[in-house]
Order: sequence, then structure tokens, then C-alpha cells
Amino acid sequence: MSKLRFDPLKRKWTVIAPERALRPIDLASKIELPNNKESCPFCPGNEAATPKEILRFNGTENGDWLLRVVPNKYPAFRIEGELKREGYGVYDIVSGIGAHEVVIETPQHNLSLSDYTPKILYNLFKAFKLRISDLRQDLRFRYIFAFKNYGFNAGATLHHPHSQIIAMPVIPDLVVSMLKSAKVYYEQKERCLLCDILAMEYRSNERIVLENADFVAICPFASLSPFETRICPVKHSHDFTELDNNELMGLANIVREIFVRLDKSLNKPHLNMVIHTSPCLNKRPAHPEYWNSIKYDYHWFLEIIPRISGYAGFEWATGFNINMVEPEEAAKFLKFVSVT
Amino acid sequence: MSKLRFDPLKRKWTVIAPERALRPIDLASKIELPNNKESCPFCPGNEAATPKEILRFNGTENGDWLLRVVPNKYPAFRIEGELKREGYGVYDIVSGIGAHEVVIETPQHNLSLSDYTPKILYNLFKAFKLRISDLRQDLRFRYIFAFKNYGFNAGATLHHPHSQIIAMPVIPDLVVSMLKSAKVYYEQKERCLLCDILAMEYRSNERIVLENADFVAICPFASLSPFETRICPVKHSHDFTELDNNELMGLANIVREIFVRLDKSLNKPHLNMVIHTSPCLNKRPAHPEYWNSIKYDYHWFLEIIPRISGYAGFEWATGFNINMVEPEEAAKFLKFVSVT
Repeated sequence: MSKLRFDPLKRKWTVIAPERALRPIDLASKIELPNNKESCPFCPGNEAATPKEILRFNGTENGDWLLRVVPNKYPAFRIEGELKREGYGVYDIVSGIGAHEVVIETPQHNLSLSDYTPKILYNLFKAFKLRISDLRQDLRFRYIFAFKNYGFNAGATLHHPHSQIIAMPVIPDLVVSMLKSAKVYYEQKERCLLCDILAMEYRSNERIVLENADFVAICPFASLSPFETRICPVKHSHDFTELDNNELMGLANIVREIFVRLDKSLNKPHLNMVIHTSPCLNKRPAHPEYWNSIKYDYHWFLEIIPRISGYAGFEWATGFNINMVEPEEAAKFLKFVSVT
Repeated sequence: MSKLRFDPLKRKWTVIAPERALRPIDLASKIELPNNKESCPFCPGNEAATPKEILRFNGTENGDWLLRVVPNKYPAFRIEGELKREGYGVYDIVSGIGAHEVVIETPQHNLSLSDYTPKILYNLFKAFKLRISDLRQDLRFRYIFAFKNYGFNAGATLHHPHSQIIAMPVIPDLVVSMLKSAKVYYEQKERCLLCDILAMEYRSNERIVLENADFVAICPFASLSPFETRICPVKHSHDFTELDNNELMGLANIVREIFVRLDKSLNKPHLNMVIHTSPCLNKRPAHPEYWNSIKYDYHWFLEIIPRISGYAGFEWATGFNINMVEPEEAAKFLKFVSVT
């Protein structure tokens, strides 16, 4: 089983997951991954190559599927086992209890960013909602989130379009940091920080790329990387799973529009997409009073990060990034780019 | 001039440095960089291609140099200009005042990790010490650090062996986090956190790779990435620039040994090397009382991070990493690997 380990100096958790590699030496040479339909474990006809299905959306034709969710074959976290939190000298260890699922987004093996239809993205977000809601019933989990690695530079190791859902026994540092910012701001002002940020963005209109009835896409003021886009629900909500079907479609539409613009304008970039949503709010001993205002102070959002610039010594040393494109320029570029 | 911008939600600074790119669209296509001796701006004979020299170590032959320090041609931070700290609605902006220097480590254009001699590394660390000490006289700077990107996967954009030194007007988040951990620990116990970590590592001897009179190399308990190595001075010191020439040589020797082992055993990995040292301790209004115990509680160290695993959606979403190699396995591997 993997373990989470805590560095008391950097105050960062790391997942040590040796079962994801064979032996240290194997890391030294790149392993070739199947990249043709015949050997692709996610293509129709090869369903037996994946672990047992967790969720499936069927098409209208007999037996066809539109989307499948299966356990990750090399999970960073596992459902089975006992959740232990141990001290070890100055260090801390938590067992890698959680879940690691793969969403096979479509039967199609090849899909450029421009090929994503609103329907495919609607199904994907619907699957995220169903799986996150279901996993939240396991009271051992503290945080559940969904993300997509598109392309090799973004960390994808299989070509067939897929996303991932992870449940973890700790709340990640970055999420704790955002929850705290939101809480402190709300305590002072009784207003949501992200709602205030959006109000300011509407007024200045410098960093807004697109909007529809339910969502607005902006290039964040302090974007960590070029053309980073943050898609926020206009209506305050702490939790992605509160979206109804209409809103899921609104999200699918705006994400599709950003995908197409990035694809056409930035020469088919690889990218990551991440949903930051509320942690699990189970009634339990760990900090229940701490999170009791989360519904009011936290505002979920989705991020799209084209992988254009790298992660080097500067980023490692400082924990922050150098971004060569002003967010205002990025927003203007994405807003007015021609996609025909 | 570049600007630092602060994200009030993630509580992260970003450097927005548009002068490092031409136009947004240029990022879409990879720019080819000179990779032959004739067009290399760092090779002997092409000295006129770099901005005016800041430091130079001469060889014994007439006019030959062993190492040069020059300003970065595309700096993330600049010496010239006025340091302004501004509020902007919910956001914060600090002007990109600082320094960005390049250390040309050797006249040789090609250098594998195994080719690094103790002498080349001694000169490099000596140059780091001299430049950091000099830059600290500028009271506008809050943090000065040195790092190396080796190879394309580690963010290097020029082939000729080089490192970088950066001075910044804010203390980076990650460094603040380490300073705070060290301070809180010291306040409780009147002991240095990293000294206690090293004592535990000596006792367990599971994660020690190498040691000499002045330094010990360990694979950290919560290593963020496979084969990450932390090289710490055995004697407590908050500041890299306190090293005398003997100790600089000890550091050069142990780093050389790690470079050779990584090169031979991991199939010539690209890597980052980072020195985490004390922030500037100038007498000034900003938090002087906060850092007054730094000499006792903080312990500088050097990190070497082979770039074997990637940075994907998981890392972006959580702020922490999945590491597929147990640090104990990594330490054993690096300790016993044959390098002949």
C-alpha cells in the first residue's frame, strides 16, 4: 500500500507509491506505452483489459458505451486496508487509503482538443459528479477531486482520452491554503473571496475570456502559467456536485469553447484540467468546527493549464512560477482568437 | 519591468515577466536554441555575446577564464528601477526589482554529470558565495538563492554548463514555510529542526547515501521525487555563505560524487540543483523581530532533484507529489551503485 509522508520542514505531504514502478532502475529508461487501437486497454472490444467497471453510460445502440469509469490499474490510493495515522520520530505517516479511478471519456481512441463535443464533456462532468458523490460516503476520505492530463507533456501515459478521480485521507496543502484564505476573508467581511474577485474582474473586464449564463472564464490575475484559465460558477457554491444537469451542460459548453481556442491558437498544446471543490464535510472528530463556514466562504472552480512553460529550479526553490505572458494579454488573445 | 503578483486565494506569488517572451503566439512554437560551439554565447571567444561581466575567475594561462558571471539577458528581475509595493483591489503587486545572473561554470561546451570535477564545482560554489554576499548589500532584496537547471527536461535553455543566481524583493512562499517550521520548532524545544532530522537519519541509517567531514547526503523521508538528494552541512549553520574554502571543497566533493552516481545509474538524467539558504537579514522595518532567531533555528541545505517523473494534474491540484521510489530504496541504490 502507498503511504503519505509529511516533511516537517517544507510542511508538504508526499505520496510514496512504490507499487506504481517496478524497480528503481526501471525509471531510468522510458517504457513504451501502447498507442494503437488494438493494444489500447480503453478501446471498445478491450474492456476485459481494465479492472471491473464502476460506472458506465450506455449509448442508444445495443451494448455500446459512451463512457466508462474503472479503477486505476496502478493506483496511488486504494480502498482496501486500514487507515492508520502514525508518528515516526519527527515524521508523520498516513496509509494510502483512498480511491483512484479512471474515466474513459469516449470510445474514440483519438480526440484532439477541438474534437471534444459538449456532449462528451457533459458526460465527463456528470461522471465526476456521480463518482465524487458516491465516494464521499466513505467516511475515511478527506478530499476527493477530479482532473485530466491531456498529452505527454501534461503527464498522460495513455493516449486514449481519459480523466482521473482521486479520494485521499488528508486534505492537500494547496487546498488547505485556499480554504484558510477563504475562511479568514469571510470572517472579516462576511463575503466570499472568490465572489469578490469575480466582481472585480467583471468591473475591469481585462481578464475575462468568455461567459455564459452560469459560468465565467478568466485568466487569473496572478496566473502561474501562460494562458491558464479559471472557470468559475457565477452563482456562489462551495461544491461542484451541486451542479444540476443544465449547469453541467453550461460547464461543458464553456470548457469546450476554451479547448477549441487553445487548440487552434496555441498549436495543439498539452494541458491539465483540475476541479477544486469542497473537501468532505463528514461529521467527524477532525476539525468539524474549522470547516463549518465552508458553504459560505469557499467557492469551487475549474482550472485549465496549457503546458507551455516548464517547471525548473526556480519553481522548485521558491514554490512559485515565472509566467511570461501577462494574464490581460492572454485573456485578450483567447477572447479574440479566430477559431474558424 | 516584471511584476510579482499575489493570488489571495492560493496565497502564492507569481512573477509575470512578459519581457522574457516576444508575443503570446511565439510561445506556441518551440524556438531552436544555439547548440554548437560557434554560436554558443557562453563559449570562449564569444564573450562579447553576453552582457558585461560581473565576476571572473582566471586560469593560470594568459587571458584564459575558468568561470564567468554575467547578467541574464532575459532577466526575471532587474536591479534598475524603483521598488514599489502596491495594492490593487483584492490583489497585490510588487515590482520585479532584484537581480538575475548567470554563472558560466566552465569554458567547456559539453559536460556530462560525470565530467564535473571537484574543481569546477568548487569554483561554482565559490562564485555563488561571492555573488550572494555582494547582492545582500542591496537592502531592497529579501531573498537571494542559487540554482542549476541541467538538461532540457530540467528547464535549461542553453547547453553550455551554467547556473543562475536570483535576488528577489519578497521571500518565496516555500522559504517562508520552511522558516516558520524551523522557528516554531525552535520556540518549543530550543533545538534546530534539521539538526534533529539529521540525528534521526544517522540513527536509522536508512536514507543516508554518503557523508564526509562536513556534509551528509540523504534521500529525504518525504522525498517529492525519485532519487531526490538533500545535502546538509553537519555543523549547524543558517547561511551558505558562512562556508570557508575547505568546506566549499567538501561540498564540491560530495556533489560531484552524487552527480557521478546519478549519471551512471539513472541513464544520464536531467536535474535541478537548488541552494536553500537564509533570507537577507538586513535591519529594516519588515518583520525584523520575526527573523531574529534565524541563526539558531534555520539550517541551510542543497537539493539535487533528478527530473525523472513529471508534474501533472495531481501535483497541480494538490501542491504535492506522487513519488514512485521509496527514499530508503533510493538511498540504498545510490549508496551501493557501481560507478566504475
